[in-house]
Amino acid sequence: MQIRPATPADHDALWEMLRPVFRAGDTYAIDPEISREAALAYWCAEHPYVAVEGNVPLGTFYIRRNQQGGGAHVCNGGYITARGAEGKGVARAMLGFSLEEAKRLGFEAMQFNFVLATNTRAIATWERAGFAEIGRIPQAFKTATGSCDALILHRFL
Amino acid sequence: MQIRPATPADHDALWEMLRPVFRAGDTYAIDPEISREAALAYWCAEHPYVAVEGNVPLGTFYIRRNQQGGGAHVCNGGYITARGAEGKGVARAMLGFSLEEAKRLGFEAMQFNFVLATNTRAIATWERAGFAEIGRIPQAFKTATGSCDALILHRFL
Repeated sequence: MQIRPATPADHDALWEMLRPVFRAGDTYAIDPEISREAALAYWCAEHPYVAVEGNVPLGTFYIRRNQQGGGAHVCNGGYITARGAEGKGVARAMLGFSLEEAKRLGFEAMQFNFVLATNTRAIATWERAGFAEIGRIPQAFKTATGSCDALILHRFL
Repeated sequence: MQIRPATPADHDALWEMLRPVFRAGDTYAIDPEISREAALAYWCAEHPYVAVEGNVPLGTFYIRRNQQGGGAHVCNGGYITARGAEGKGVARAMLGFSLEEAKRLGFEAMQFNFVLATNTRAIATWERAGFAEIGRIPQAFKTATGSCDALILHRFL
């Protein structure tokens, strides 16, 4: 598995990975109807990456400033594993890479603003990687059947 | 004091209020060098308002979705009182108006993502208005002399 910065040549592959996740609308707080162009602009705004094996995309993530000005030393990240690439350690590899890369880019901490409390597997992975829950937004996300809380996770780099 | 939606005709007045606050860079997590155009685009993205007395602008605030998709029922707000208009209850009037207006717009909760822990006066105002601290980001904001935490405040509408 190789992890490298994504370029415009990766946009088709990125969109193939983003589309099902955004369209499902059950993990990311993104408009499920978001256009390809808007989705790629969102994902690739600052530092997008792709994980590949040969020519097969396995996952993608981004790193970007979570705030501007006096808050620009804290970054945010988002991660998506390609359908069919689950269970190969792709998410863990991307997380490990992103923590190193974020530090190299000069960030001092990483923050996830909106992790669904029901996403227990991802939360366990992040807590093992040193993230701490620093906040909990009540009833932050509406689902077909109700609503769930969202957690805010943070780690110094 | 009248509070009403801001229009493009208010842009000069808005910028006069935003500029000193953004340029100072010590309360909002905004690039202190932000351009007028980018600042107005940021402030007026969804629902900008202005508080005036006659033709004199006293303050401005915005309401907007804090997340998209399944998180779009929670709004975010930002408030700036004009220089020289402090101590007249402008901030409190804008907050009260914005809570009613946000509910009218269909939002179910309001969240502030980044309140400097040193901004004790604003925090006290918001807590009196029913906001609860739901998170605290350690060393979230860099100042000339060090860094301070940022609070996340939340209130159901």
